[in-house]
Amino acid sequence: MANASESIERLTPGPRMSQGVVHGGLLYTAGQVDKESADVGEQTKNVLAKIDALLARAQSSKSQVLSANVWLSDMATFDEMNRVWEHWIDPHNPPARATVESRLATPEYKVEIAIIAVAGEAQ
Amino acid sequence: MANASESIERLTPGPRMSQGVVHGGLLYTAGQVDKESADVGEQTKNVLAKIDALLARAQSSKSQVLSANVWLSDMATFDEMNRVWEHWIDPHNPPARATVESRLATPEYKVEIAIIAVAGEAQ
Amino acid sequence: MANASESIERLTPGPRMSQGVVHGGLLYTAGQVDKESADVGEQTKNVLAKIDALLARAQSSKSQVLSANVWLSDMATFDEMNRVWEHWIDPHNPPARATVESRLATPEYKVEIAIIAVAGEAQ
Repeated sequence: MANASESIERLTPGPRMSQGVVHGGLLYTAGQVDKESADVGEQTKNVLAKIDALLARAQSSKSQVLSANVWLSDMATFDEMNRVWEHWIDPHNPPARATVESRLATPEYKVEIAIIAVAGEAQ
Repeated sequence: MANASESIERLTPGPRMSQGVVHGGLLYTAGQVDKESADVGEQTKNVLAKIDALLARAQSSKSQVLSANVWLSDMATFDEMNRVWEHWIDPHNPPARATVESRLATPEYKVEIAIIAVAGEAQ
Repeated sequence: MANASESIERLTPGPRMSQGVVHGGLLYTAGQVDKESADVGEQTKNVLAKIDALLARAQSSKSQVLSANVWLSDMATFDEMNRVWEHWIDPHNPPARATVESRLATPEYKVEIAIIAVAGEAQ
């Protein structure tokens, strides 16, 4: 067995998943979703705020995101999502990204985003 | 060229893909699928057994999984998959996870799971 | 804050994303797509040529790809994509891979591929 579990830090662990996991200088987030709003732009804002919070807990920030997966429940909302995304990212440090259409866990979810970022020690 | 190919270990390499790749202390698995059963819960069990086997070959275990991608061919099976998933994971070490709906390589496949985990040397 | 942003190199950064990001000896690419051709096999060739170019810029090569995500807009094209894929990969070093169906950013896109690979310093 790799004897490394002590160096894996789990953020907001629950019975199904952790919202983030920090190991080896990287943060891996769970897919973040929101249903405060029915609007995909608002959901994107709220999802990115959750990602900001996870990044902060991992002593990271949006300028240190390496890659992102974006899932939209309806690709017709691509532009609405992008407007919020492009406002959010650090323009000097854009991550790699792949955006595809997939139905999400509940029809209320319009967008889901997971990222990998450079991290410090989790707090 | 990065002269690092000697440190990349490939598990069950085939003409299309390896079932797992170990490098830099991490195991990356291929998407694992199963068609022994038509039932999504049974398929999830079988898929996770395949992941356990890959983890073991990488001197790792389910307590060292960092992140997981779960694809369901029908999101209506979300709860059935989750029952098996929640029983499988180490409750003290839940991975980050994103679950979305996507049609899979054949209609027989109901669930596909790929993970990234901390690994030792592959065997 | 993890003080590591100077060690993150971004390939072809744009207002929305970078086409690749190099950090910690790994290259993470954005989802690569093509619309030069309407044919999924041709698109796969062109997408893999873009990945070859990103790998070269990261002092890497297709023999050092760790994992790949392939999205097809129509799983009926699985065999056509695979013919090109299997010709492309280094048969001695096949990556882990997951292939699922998802609608892509525009209907013209039939295939999208993102990879993680071992990298040297980006150029």
